[in-house]
Amino acid sequence: MNIVVQKFGGTSVRNLECQRQVMQKVLRPYREGNKVIVVLSAMSGETNRLLALADEWSDTPDAAEVDSMVSTGEQVSCALFAMLLKQQGVKARSVLGFQAPIQTDCAHGKARIVSIDETKLVDMLKEYDILVVAGFQGCGDDMRITTLGRGGSDTSAVALAAAIDADVCEIYTDVPGVFTTDPNMCSDARKMDRVAYDEMLEMASMGAKVLQIRSVEFAKKYNVTVHVRSTFTDELGTIVTKEDETMEAVLVSGIAYDKDQAQITLVHVQDKPGVSAQIFSPLAEEQVLVDMIVQSPSKDGKTDMTFTIPRADMKQTIKTLEKLQYEIGFEELNSNPNVSKVSIIGVGMRNHSGVAARAFQALADENVNILMISTSEIKVTCLIDDKYTELAVRTLHKAFHLEDGEPL
Amino acid sequence: MNIVVQKFGGTSVRNLECQRQVMQKVLRPYREGNKVIVVLSAMSGETNRLLALADEWSDTPDAAEVDSMVSTGEQVSCALFAMLLKQQGVKARSVLGFQAPIQTDCAHGKARIVSIDETKLVDMLKEYDILVVAGFQGCGDDMRITTLGRGGSDTSAVALAAAIDADVCEIYTDVPGVFTTDPNMCSDARKMDRVAYDEMLEMASMGAKVLQIRSVEFAKKYNVTVHVRSTFTDELGTIVTKEDETMEAVLVSGIAYDKDQAQITLVHVQDKPGVSAQIFSPLAEEQVLVDMIVQSPSKDGKTDMTFTIPRADMKQTIKTLEKLQYEIGFEELNSNPNVSKVSIIGVGMRNHSGVAARAFQALADENVNILMISTSEIKVTCLIDDKYTELAVRTLHKAFHLEDGEPL
Repeated sequence: MNIVVQKFGGTSVRNLECQRQVMQKVLRPYREGNKVIVVLSAMSGETNRLLALADEWSDTPDAAEVDSMVSTGEQVSCALFAMLLKQQGVKARSVLGFQAPIQTDCAHGKARIVSIDETKLVDMLKEYDILVVAGFQGCGDDMRITTLGRGGSDTSAVALAAAIDADVCEIYTDVPGVFTTDPNMCSDARKMDRVAYDEMLEMASMGAKVLQIRSVEFAKKYNVTVHVRSTFTDELGTIVTKEDETMEAVLVSGIAYDKDQAQITLVHVQDKPGVSAQIFSPLAEEQVLVDMIVQSPSKDGKTDMTFTIPRADMKQTIKTLEKLQYEIGFEELNSNPNVSKVSIIGVGMRNHSGVAARAFQALADENVNILMISTSEIKVTCLIDDKYTELAVRTLHKAFHLEDGEPL
Repeated sequence: MNIVVQKFGGTSVRNLECQRQVMQKVLRPYREGNKVIVVLSAMSGETNRLLALADEWSDTPDAAEVDSMVSTGEQVSCALFAMLLKQQGVKARSVLGFQAPIQTDCAHGKARIVSIDETKLVDMLKEYDILVVAGFQGCGDDMRITTLGRGGSDTSAVALAAAIDADVCEIYTDVPGVFTTDPNMCSDARKMDRVAYDEMLEMASMGAKVLQIRSVEFAKKYNVTVHVRSTFTDELGTIVTKEDETMEAVLVSGIAYDKDQAQITLVHVQDKPGVSAQIFSPLAEEQVLVDMIVQSPSKDGKTDMTFTIPRADMKQTIKTLEKLQYEIGFEELNSNPNVSKVSIIGVGMRNHSGVAARAFQALADENVNILMISTSEIKVTCLIDDKYTELAVRTLHKAFHLEDGEPL
């Protein structure tokens, strides 16, 4: 049994006309003799409408009840789409999270998929040719409805593809695929034919919104080939898959950026054992995502600690740390809300040297000052003044010849 | 564990303000130390909105998908109401049909409750003080969502009360209780304190819309005491219960009517064995509900057949029978779309004679001509010209002194 998994977002199913277009995409693999699992989101606007109701009803709406309520969005869109297919004479039915069943933990609002019982799905696929599965939702041990968090339908699709060993998981979206960088920033941005899981993870973590990060983790873990493509054309998009030799031949695959960053520096921190924990544990407790951390070499028993955080968390972070000034023992707290991160990403870096140096030189040639640097195996990130973000993205894109896609 | 079941309709839960009022009703038995099971309908208008979507999507929407979709109405209202209770510090949660579970057959859109597993409900009642159960919905063997048909929330409530052996099942509605007749027809109509299951069944089948007929059948079968009362006041309503001596002392409990009737007469039907089946089987196949049937005494091997049907089915009925004129062998088909049924109902009739005669005399005194008569153990129905409906209802109400509620 050849199985294709397809996922469509809320915009694609927002009304009858859109659903008819989606149906054409779904009928293509069906007519080629495949069984199809279609994963749908709620019609666009519906989840927000329901969340607004919850907020009207309660200051602190119970998370389990919110899940039970917002999951109705997918319940409706899937039932409607299944009707449409049945009207065409296709053997189809909707499948809700508890029916699949998609078992999750009980962390309402941000549940994680624990297991999917493929035997039930296989049974259903014997009786039906197309299953219309509600994305974003699952079911806890206690049979209560859970949701996977925003963008969770991507994860639903990849998890179903993994469970049922599908040939491919197609994620339909409003862009043609994954680009070497944000086309709004850089007109030379080029759609990639293929991208490695790890590259995609780094891009997603830097705010590329094509795929939800957890769905990429899932795809990597279970080796699911994901095809990100456009709802509006029949052109091929980008294949997200495990890295191979051709990918490794390319030094840099893409440029990512994140403009919503702030930089904090604690000046003249007492350099004693445990001081890092004293600084970062209180921030972790408040769910502040600290990213780049640089500790300057110690001098006279004192050091400077610099790190980045999401800009939205800056006020809270300053407040928290100032309260602990005496305890931590720093002299001054400096903050800069006008910084952004720019990264070059590529699995090819693993085997090549000089990539970082070339990036620094390119930025220097354009007089872009680098405030901080952090590197990983497949990524080099520079913190810069955010007014240079666009310039830096374009410069790096050009420096690594990303516009033509040829290995360097 | 003392348990009270309460049911509220769509108008009562249509917005936050209304739900707050409902909450006061729910908190009363809770504060008196009872566990409460609240059964809710969808917020008013929601079920129709969803059904309209289904009709937009498909000419013949799949019944199972419609069920999955319309059941979201209750899912939302229950989640919101549970949030409200939790906000008050009450241990409460919503319970969907598949969670209770309320097992039904698989007749989507008009499913019947097969069983309710009280052990799960009892377990939940140990953990929670108030369960907010979605009315109208259940779950088939195949784990698909079913609905019980319009007004099914009444049945949900009574079935839950039966399963869990509740002390009382309170059905809250927009009227103060069950009346001796329609107050819009007869200003002397009086709210009854008590009414027997069988009387209620006859009234419901005649179009009294206070309780769904199936819920009364359920209540009778499992001997559930139902209290029909107003959402808007704290006054006692009407207790629907098994008949007792005081009820039997009353000859007639109420007057019901149904204005949407039509009368069909087949003139000079060949009086041969099997002719009734020839007439009524084709109508049954088309789901036409034939009610009163009178066959006149045979003369020269011919007879007249007269019966009533819902007015909406008249055209179809005439068409069907005219096609079979040769086969059945009748000379003429007469129809009258302007008739209505008026009934006197009372368990007291079982033990008293002369009730029918008194009714006929009262109508005769007002020059209301009776077109047909049918009687059951606890009901006498007269078919009359529908322009006399109101007069007939008032006349009979007065003839049996229903305005003062004293046994005759």
